[in-house]
Amino acid sequence: MAGRLVTVDGGEGAGKTTQMGFMREYLERRGYRVVTTREPGGTSLGEEIRALLLGHRDGGMTLAAETLLMFAARAEHLERVIRPVLATGCWVLCDRFTDATYAYQGGGRGLPLERIAVLEEWVQGELRPDLTLLLDVPVATGLTRAGKRGVADRFERENVDFFERVRAIYLERATHEPNRCRVVDASQSVEAVRAEVEAMLAEWLESG
Amino acid sequence: MAGRLVTVDGGEGAGKTTQMGFMREYLERRGYRVVTTREPGGTSLGEEIRALLLGHRDGGMTLAAETLLMFAARAEHLERVIRPVLATGCWVLCDRFTDATYAYQGGGRGLPLERIAVLEEWVQGELRPDLTLLLDVPVATGLTRAGKRGVADRFERENVDFFERVRAIYLERATHEPNRCRVVDASQSVEAVRAEVEAMLAEWLESG
Repeated sequence: MAGRLVTVDGGEGAGKTTQMGFMREYLERRGYRVVTTREPGGTSLGEEIRALLLGHRDGGMTLAAETLLMFAARAEHLERVIRPVLATGCWVLCDRFTDATYAYQGGGRGLPLERIAVLEEWVQGELRPDLTLLLDVPVATGLTRAGKRGVADRFERENVDFFERVRAIYLERATHEPNRCRVVDASQSVEAVRAEVEAMLAEWLESG
Repeated sequence: MAGRLVTVDGGEGAGKTTQMGFMREYLERRGYRVVTTREPGGTSLGEEIRALLLGHRDGGMTLAAETLLMFAARAEHLERVIRPVLATGCWVLCDRFTDATYAYQGGGRGLPLERIAVLEEWVQGELRPDLTLLLDVPVATGLTRAGKRGVADRFERENVDFFERVRAIYLERATHEPNRCRVVDASQSVEAVRAEVEAMLAEWLESG
């Protein structure tokens, strides 16, 4: 049986890394094999592209180039990691996926969402995550948490309005795809979020 | 008046760089201002993408990622260099452009041409070169010439069949777009090619 693709998304400081660790433990306790990966990145080429995307450069880069680079990394990641791993029956737990492109390049930077949909179809064909966990946190809370982590990358340096637009698109997508997306209030304590995420996973595993 | 976009394309060892130098001199003698650039590259981000594309890496990269990287570099190049330069009335003389993507990723590597057309439209909208010079040379001749230039990059290392498919797509595109594309037999001497290119340019300038 093919594995499942589970993606974890959300704004800055939502606690994705921490909760992904718990999700992995939880799934492994239930007997699933799990590979954890991230976007942009997840392959050697993808990590090089990630460095281009997140690094500071004078004058930034055009929105079109940024979006194409995201999908270039994703294409490599899908073909080299995600699809082969799923084919072995292993699950893939991925830190950020195409919802992030809609949220950041679409919501944050204003690229029309239908232009993103063209590239999503070009790169992914029919493939979509089986389950997406959206860790939702108010922008101010998330930025305060992220601020504790040291030097900000090119995205983390954006202003509050940018992150409000990012959050709005995440929530809009979750609302329109309730079967795929589950939203968890990530402003709670780490343990409270963990409990909610595990309850959600238990319910989802039983329903599917 | 807006400048014109003139692209020079062709397989390995066709003599693009040499002829572009002559074309630039010729156009400047006729009173045009000319900016010379190249793809992939032409911007700082584009040159970093070029290094990813041409560098050797274990296992290469997926065709989808390669093609998206080409168009990411092109998007940056168009928005940061080509369109602004054309808007000043200057001409742009570009070493390789989208015909090369059709020829190499389409013909050479087998990506369906209609998939390339989707990205061409996504990145370029309506923009197409005003004139494309195709320097056509038999594969064996071109490879012999290119072999004299030292270490081969990731594309130059492909086999003869690959370059035959590249050449076939170049010629097919030129045949289907005779108004935009002019083919010059680049197996002749440098001076003979130069004379033919200049005659072609003179005719084209008078016609348009």
